[in-house]
Amino acid sequence: MQDFDRLIERCVDVVAAHELRERLREGRPLRVKLGIDPSGPLLHLGHAVVLRKLREFQDLGHKVILVVGDFTGQIGDPTGRSEARRPRSSAEIQADMQSYTEQAGLVLDIAQAEVVYNSHWLAKLSFADLIKLCAKTTVARMLERDDFSKRFADGEAIALHEFLYPLAVAYDSVVLRSDVELGGNEQLFNLLMGRRLQEEAGQRPQICMTLPILEGTDGVARMGKSLNNFIALREPAEQMFGKVMSVPDNLLERYWRLGTTAQAAQVDRLMAGLADGSLSPRDAKLQLAGAIVELYHGTTAAAQARDHFERTVVRKELPTDVPTFALDGAAENLSLAKLLVQLGWAASHREAERLVRQGAVKIDGARIGDARHVPPSWRGKILQKGNHQFVRLV
Amino acid sequence: MQDFDRLIERCVDVVAAHELRERLREGRPLRVKLGIDPSGPLLHLGHAVVLRKLREFQDLGHKVILVVGDFTGQIGDPTGRSEARRPRSSAEIQADMQSYTEQAGLVLDIAQAEVVYNSHWLAKLSFADLIKLCAKTTVARMLERDDFSKRFADGEAIALHEFLYPLAVAYDSVVLRSDVELGGNEQLFNLLMGRRLQEEAGQRPQICMTLPILEGTDGVARMGKSLNNFIALREPAEQMFGKVMSVPDNLLERYWRLGTTAQAAQVDRLMAGLADGSLSPRDAKLQLAGAIVELYHGTTAAAQARDHFERTVVRKELPTDVPTFALDGAAENLSLAKLLVQLGWAASHREAERLVRQGAVKIDGARIGDARHVPPSWRGKILQKGNHQFVRLV
Repeated sequence: MQDFDRLIERCVDVVAAHELRERLREGRPLRVKLGIDPSGPLLHLGHAVVLRKLREFQDLGHKVILVVGDFTGQIGDPTGRSEARRPRSSAEIQADMQSYTEQAGLVLDIAQAEVVYNSHWLAKLSFADLIKLCAKTTVARMLERDDFSKRFADGEAIALHEFLYPLAVAYDSVVLRSDVELGGNEQLFNLLMGRRLQEEAGQRPQICMTLPILEGTDGVARMGKSLNNFIALREPAEQMFGKVMSVPDNLLERYWRLGTTAQAAQVDRLMAGLADGSLSPRDAKLQLAGAIVELYHGTTAAAQARDHFERTVVRKELPTDVPTFALDGAAENLSLAKLLVQLGWAASHREAERLVRQGAVKIDGARIGDARHVPPSWRGKILQKGNHQFVRLV
Repeated sequence: MQDFDRLIERCVDVVAAHELRERLREGRPLRVKLGIDPSGPLLHLGHAVVLRKLREFQDLGHKVILVVGDFTGQIGDPTGRSEARRPRSSAEIQADMQSYTEQAGLVLDIAQAEVVYNSHWLAKLSFADLIKLCAKTTVARMLERDDFSKRFADGEAIALHEFLYPLAVAYDSVVLRSDVELGGNEQLFNLLMGRRLQEEAGQRPQICMTLPILEGTDGVARMGKSLNNFIALREPAEQMFGKVMSVPDNLLERYWRLGTTAQAAQVDRLMAGLADGSLSPRDAKLQLAGAIVELYHGTTAAAQARDHFERTVVRKELPTDVPTFALDGAAENLSLAKLLVQLGWAASHREAERLVRQGAVKIDGARIGDARHVPPSWRGKILQKGNHQFVRLV
């Protein structure tokens, strides 16, 4: 089944895959849940990994349900330790969600998605309801969750209410009768909890699909706002291009697979090219950056961004102590050859023409082959002769 | 301060003792809380240890508040594993409390006690309230509770809702603004949780006083209904007396200190007597049984119970193969002496009188000094001559 193969591509876990296959066969639109944190959203390529999977479900006619986790946001940090996590007002949550959907709309067909707020049902749960919910799981099982087990082993405090949150979001699945829930692969535990509660409630349990966590541009930690190693979906094209180029070479394949819509076979070919040396890492990365920027800004912007990058990155490679040369007013209309003479880099106009023809001259890092070249303005440009001679025109 | 000394007597823990001293000095009636489980109550000497401490508070003019834990009872066993712990109806809980107060009234001045039901406030708590409550403690702290830590270490399941109960009963203290909470010494953790929540709520934290857990009549486990090693407060006098007599000698001091109202100095004297041999363990225990029965049934009943015990315990010491002797109708009116002749135990009426006078004859283990003795009925009685001759009259 083609749909099935497409949907499970890129996933880390699919529990249970055969159930997904069955439900796809039923032909009805599946209810595909994604829980989202609405506070101060800044969506980046890491989020897009899951959002693109959701989009694939949409493209196949399924229903995407974005579950806004506003319930916990309205409580804030109940330990009172975090000033930042004060309770958020309804208006703040609305504003956040406006921003979220605008950004998510760069990937999803947001008009077709259903947006629901889990405070609508969670706020109504009573103590008795909670006891029944909590009775469905054990302390040991909660401590199996990776982050809890690590903190517990390290003797770090886990406030008891933190155990309630996975149950709350799992309960969302019961209320929404979701067929599928997506998440990052650290979410598997929570997703399975939803599956379990649905079973307890006599529902068909949701299929849990997790996607890889994308590494940040530092190549070390997961992409995230706090580490400033992210590429935002709304990042301007040139900045986005440059950030992709700064990703370490060893992440090239991951970014190709998780950050673009390239088919697996296409990525395989690129990787083969890298392996046999027919493709340089730099070119592979330029293509990657182009592919990513194109997704969010279109083809033209991607080409411009590449052009901008090629100029500015070279600028970055300049020595830090480039001497300056003050142009007089008339100099603005000089051709490249004439400027080279004036700078004293060529003894004659003919020598200047020869240098340019040989490719020894670059403007802002870009090789210029036409000695008659006159840019709109010379001011601000960096002229380079050979590998070591630079001047900044002011 | 005399009141203080009396109140802390017998306690295992008093947190914080100096605060109790201070509050007693304030002169106002303190609010003294005891949480009780209303389901199928059968109060025994183990419960009485705490109830007597409460009574001491009452005698000093303080207010006793019995907090009925009906909230959890109304939920039953949310894991659904226990058929027995199905949700209890309001009527069942009322009936249980009727029975509870009747029994507790054997120790407390129940008319002066306030009885409250914690469902009144716990049922109203929302999920948001619960999150705030749970945020006040940590998973590690919960696991410090003795029974939890043991079960966790043994790999036994702790359902998550079990963590909510200590918080719920601790929250009761906040609602009730209790000055003091009493409990068995396994309750210290829960009592301290109440202290903590009160502090968080800006209240003066309650003083936590725990009392020892009384061992059962088997001398092994704590006294409890399920182990059938208990002495119920409503136990008939003779049965109560016999049960106390069956307690192992090594628990004599504990039963004296925890099961009676004897002053510490009096118990010290008894123990000294036992140590120097001037008092036999058996006599010490007869006194103990008398003291306990007297508390629940009065002086006369206690004396009768002792008498009954002395007769029946000897009956227990009888050989198992006592021969029977069938009386004819006229025998019912025979005197003891005449019966002895008829049995062939005395050759003549005079010999029979001599035997009786010498104390060689017992009826149901009790020595009888009057040869003319005629009981209401001879049937069922066991007659004994010397140490080895027995007959059961039928």
